[in-house]
Amino acid sequence: MADPATISPAPPLKDELDIVIPTIRNLDFLEMWRPFFQPYHLIIVQDGDPSKTIKVPEGFDYELYNRNDINRILGPKASCISFKDSACRCFGFMVSKKKYIYTIDDDCFVAKDPSGNEINALEQHIKNLLTPSTPFFFNTLYDPYRAGADFVRGYPFSLREGVPTAVSHGLWLNIPDYDAPTQLVKPLERNTRYVDAVMSIPKGTLFPMCGMNLAFNRELIGPAMYFGLMGDGQPIGRYDDMWAGWCTKVICDHLGWGVKTGLPYIWHSKASNPFVNLKKEYKGIYWQEELIPFFQSVTLPKDCTSVQKCYIELATQVKAKLGKVDEYFNKLADAMVTWIEAWDELNPSGALKSAALPNGAPK
Amino acid sequence: MADPATISPAPPLKDELDIVIPTIRNLDFLEMWRPFFQPYHLIIVQDGDPSKTIKVPEGFDYELYNRNDINRILGPKASCISFKDSACRCFGFMVSKKKYIYTIDDDCFVAKDPSGNEINALEQHIKNLLTPSTPFFFNTLYDPYRAGADFVRGYPFSLREGVPTAVSHGLWLNIPDYDAPTQLVKPLERNTRYVDAVMSIPKGTLFPMCGMNLAFNRELIGPAMYFGLMGDGQPIGRYDDMWAGWCTKVICDHLGWGVKTGLPYIWHSKASNPFVNLKKEYKGIYWQEELIPFFQSVTLPKDCTSVQKCYIELATQVKAKLGKVDEYFNKLADAMVTWIEAWDELNPSGALKSAALPNGAPK
Repeated sequence: MADPATISPAPPLKDELDIVIPTIRNLDFLEMWRPFFQPYHLIIVQDGDPSKTIKVPEGFDYELYNRNDINRILGPKASCISFKDSACRCFGFMVSKKKYIYTIDDDCFVAKDPSGNEINALEQHIKNLLTPSTPFFFNTLYDPYRAGADFVRGYPFSLREGVPTAVSHGLWLNIPDYDAPTQLVKPLERNTRYVDAVMSIPKGTLFPMCGMNLAFNRELIGPAMYFGLMGDGQPIGRYDDMWAGWCTKVICDHLGWGVKTGLPYIWHSKASNPFVNLKKEYKGIYWQEELIPFFQSVTLPKDCTSVQKCYIELATQVKAKLGKVDEYFNKLADAMVTWIEAWDELNPSGALKSAALPNGAPK
Repeated sequence: MADPATISPAPPLKDELDIVIPTIRNLDFLEMWRPFFQPYHLIIVQDGDPSKTIKVPEGFDYELYNRNDINRILGPKASCISFKDSACRCFGFMVSKKKYIYTIDDDCFVAKDPSGNEINALEQHIKNLLTPSTPFFFNTLYDPYRAGADFVRGYPFSLREGVPTAVSHGLWLNIPDYDAPTQLVKPLERNTRYVDAVMSIPKGTLFPMCGMNLAFNRELIGPAMYFGLMGDGQPIGRYDDMWAGWCTKVICDHLGWGVKTGLPYIWHSKASNPFVNLKKEYKGIYWQEELIPFFQSVTLPKDCTSVQKCYIELATQVKAKLGKVDEYFNKLADAMVTWIEAWDELNPSGALKSAALPNGAPK
């Protein structure tokens, strides 16, 4: 019999969480993550040339999908999955069968906290997801569920139970997630500030969700985590995660779920080319000025009681109100519907389950 | 001629900021603040027995008002200023002639940052007030105007100018600002977490504003910084700053101004008695459940283009909608009107100036 003292505790949510990684290269970056990721199952979404072989370090448990696999599994519905863009990662969300997803980019490494300890980003995301959110009132000492913190004087007692957390958005040390114009203007800026906080993003407030270091409750919000049409054949890039973030936030607000941001940090190793980025972004930068007012004013009817229903309704409104901004949004709205059809095909029980979710949120 | 290298820079806003301190005791705590506060003018509001002498350490430039002074200056309108409660501090806001106010409690000392350096809280508040706020969209790297930070990818460019900052809400190390029930449950909890961030509280989100370590632009928002009726002869206490915070936030949201929270920290030296606090708070804890929905749903008409007009309108709505919660709110609504009348009497040019302020905010 093993000595209990030598048994390390089981990694949290080991059988309930998949790590989704979009990539075009060998996954050497996993070596650094081995102590934290090895117990978990990986879903690797290979972007670009499917004939290329992606090497995965020994000892990791993974499944890998390339473009041929995506086409084979989704058939004509594969059109909703972006190609030559990390937006393809959302295919991994769709084929997962787990309750939780963590997704990370392959240029993200283990960061250190101010004491010099390596940060187990996944463990912090899990803490964020397993504790409630407080989107209806701001707590000035940040996450009230964290050890050493609580709700401050003046925080209504009726709101202290919080609501389920759907999304945990982590941050980045070293290379900050800037747009191309800011990259060009501040090529040497590095994020060196470790802000020791997690907080709920208030209801009604939009934020720029970055897909680099992101976890979510797939059972709650999975069908809204669609990264849109980017990359090959599309007029924009680098708005995939933003799009997912706006849709997700609006739906979480409607269904009464929480979105957190802050810890954990990862170490973002290198900046992407700002000139290439500018080409991908410029239409998005322009269109965004119409997208934000749209998402700020969107309302979902009461009978939208599942994420799928919300998302289909959102697609309808995108077509009605953004179609005139550019033809691209008509195509995107169609792809949003295709995405939901594909999701429900691959997740038949999930679709039922989600539709039957009680809608316990204050409206 | 003095060697320029030996001339220290003038303290920021030296002639444009008053420090307001409500107290019932000798102000020995100022010794610790001397390096930071001595260049500034203090307004001391003496609470309780006016025959008592409050000793102020040598070398500080101050004016002091006791209850007799308040009664003499305001006449019958003195009824709107609380007695035997630190809510009386707002009298200091009214008699100041400066553009900015910093208010601090006399049990607050200089805190140290994680590197062990003493924190100049006032200097940080001034930075917060002199840089814009971003209440219309959340920036995940916190204050985008801070050195080493910026707006992240996906932040709309049209919102990057920000809006004027009206309020800077600072935090507390050591004794956290908990309500009596939380104090009773967690008597030993201390806040040891230094969160190195300043952020805008999003538009439409309420927060619990604590008056312990607070700065604001008096010219912008002064008339809304009324701390209500607390203490002697009133049914509640410890909701003075909360009330001011809710009114202020709703008006800032309406007029398009920002409210920041986070840095700077002060060292809060000792917890007040939780049993005494419970007696003061219990009606507030109960009433608050109706106050928060009221403030969350309040809307101010477009013709409320000055803080005074907004505040008078708010008083009307308080009477109409909260009067039925308790007779106290009818009295409070009347006091809110008296407060504005007294403010305009003491600040005749300010009243005009404020009414003529351009309303440049998005609605």
